[in-house]
Amino acid sequence: MAEAISGQYADLWKSISRLSKAGGKRIRPYVMLLAYGMEKSGRNVDSVLPAAAAQELLHLALLIHDDIIDRDYTRYGIKNISGQYGELYAPFIKNDNDRRHFSDSAAILAGDLLIVEAHNAIRQCKVESKRIAHAQTILEKSIFHVVGGQLLDTESAFRPSSQANALTIAEQKTASYSFVNPLTMGAALAGATPDTIRRLKEFGLALGTAYQLQDDLLGMFGDEIITGKSISSDIVEGKHTYLIEQFYKLANSSQKESFEAVFCNPTATASEIASAKDLLVDSGARHAVQSAITGYAELANAKLDTLSMDDAARTAFASLVKVCTARAK
Amino acid sequence: MAEAISGQYADLWKSISRLSKAGGKRIRPYVMLLAYGMEKSGRNVDSVLPAAAAQELLHLALLIHDDIIDRDYTRYGIKNISGQYGELYAPFIKNDNDRRHFSDSAAILAGDLLIVEAHNAIRQCKVESKRIAHAQTILEKSIFHVVGGQLLDTESAFRPSSQANALTIAEQKTASYSFVNPLTMGAALAGATPDTIRRLKEFGLALGTAYQLQDDLLGMFGDEIITGKSISSDIVEGKHTYLIEQFYKLANSSQKESFEAVFCNPTATASEIASAKDLLVDSGARHAVQSAITGYAELANAKLDTLSMDDAARTAFASLVKVCTARAK
Repeated sequence: MAEAISGQYADLWKSISRLSKAGGKRIRPYVMLLAYGMEKSGRNVDSVLPAAAAQELLHLALLIHDDIIDRDYTRYGIKNISGQYGELYAPFIKNDNDRRHFSDSAAILAGDLLIVEAHNAIRQCKVESKRIAHAQTILEKSIFHVVGGQLLDTESAFRPSSQANALTIAEQKTASYSFVNPLTMGAALAGATPDTIRRLKEFGLALGTAYQLQDDLLGMFGDEIITGKSISSDIVEGKHTYLIEQFYKLANSSQKESFEAVFCNPTATASEIASAKDLLVDSGARHAVQSAITGYAELANAKLDTLSMDDAARTAFASLVKVCTARAK
Repeated sequence: MAEAISGQYADLWKSISRLSKAGGKRIRPYVMLLAYGMEKSGRNVDSVLPAAAAQELLHLALLIHDDIIDRDYTRYGIKNISGQYGELYAPFIKNDNDRRHFSDSAAILAGDLLIVEAHNAIRQCKVESKRIAHAQTILEKSIFHVVGGQLLDTESAFRPSSQANALTIAEQKTASYSFVNPLTMGAALAGATPDTIRRLKEFGLALGTAYQLQDDLLGMFGDEIITGKSISSDIVEGKHTYLIEQFYKLANSSQKESFEAVFCNPTATASEIASAKDLLVDSGARHAVQSAITGYAELANAKLDTLSMDDAARTAFASLVKVCTARAK
């Protein structure tokens, strides 16, 4: 269909498709289908597969806009939309700033399209229209939350705030759309009661927060080969994670002084970065984050116990908690 | 609700509200309600008012993202989202490039929110769910088209293409979402037949194309005080409108040479710009555009004749064509 408008428009869709195939754990569609089948594992999921796809479409849309904001040009080991368009426009736009501006513009448009496609996908589900409307409400609420979280996250680097903290951001930015959204949407499409949906939301908030904290740890102490993410960028870019918040709470003044020479310093050397990480361990900040993850995982498990589901689903949900909170990737 | 996430998030919504109140002709909601009441003027429109609001929400979302792409910081005589955030971030971010990047980032997020709010609004209509689903499909199709048009428009400045031309861009970028979308959505919400919807689409494409061509003329020869838009920017920025296409088709080589010294030249003086405009008149390009507008207006009127509607609606539709194609604003 894009081809009918122009070959150039078809290029944008090809870039999106390339990015989508390059990676991603597909955890959100999995979680949605798990919640959908919770009361009757093994039920046929064909009728709601489009809503599972919508999870990935939304995720990709948010990643694309997020990468523009973070000025990242790669994702899943390949060039993201801005990166691909930087290459495509290279023969036509010589000025670096202009080329970046226009390749980011293409990425803005790509994200817009995918937000719309996520809505479109949900409407393709073959369930009664009341349930589809409910799923749409859930999608919209979750975008409302994730955008709020994204704004706080972006501004946390420079705008003083009494309210924004890493846990709020983790809840709004990660837990809301990566866990609460697929869980409650799956349940809504299955016609679950408001009470079940509320419990799933609480479960998703706890699990999603743990997931984000684990992400922060992996971004600092993970294996780059396994995660595919740099383990120095959070330090040199001065990312205000919960780990950093804990460090400032726990460290003594000499530790803080040493840390600040490296944190948010793009010229820091590898050995300086390594020493800064040691400070995160020595101050007890890493341990505090690990305890918080354990606490949120326990909370998630406690919420799980209040939900009625069949045995197969319970096993799958329990594994989900384990995988999300003890993952290396 | 945004306040519950953080005061900073509430700021973003306040910026959006400020921009929305600063201007806009509200032509799209008017057109939607006109189509909704076409077969029975004076029918109560309360049940579909949210879809009329959705027209404005979508329009605002597109303007906000469009302004980022065009690097514009004002709209309706006030600062747009990027402009307002540039001010808000000024105390925190001293570097101009960084401040612009982050204020544009806030504007990306604002546009995303409004795309979602447009979807949300449609669902609030009090009509049967089949009609709402139809209206949603129309919204999504129109975003698909407008994004394609926007990409072509952006790339027309630098990427050679055999397909992209100003009429295609006018059709995709303006006619599709400013006319076809409200017209067909209004009719869909009223339960019109597919045949009526198809005729309205053809009417909207003709009218919307005329509207865009008139916009191009106003951008070049209009009264800045009435339009609120600069009449030199299209020349100095080298915007590839249908008017410019006609000029290159009709001008002789000496006219082209004189024109090119000014077109897309940010250092052009006021008198050079005035001379370039004279060339657009002398070459016959302005006249060619006026003829095209007349042609599209006639086409729109002919399509109108094929549509069944009551007398009051027919009068209103005929005025709409007149106003859109002979406007000064």
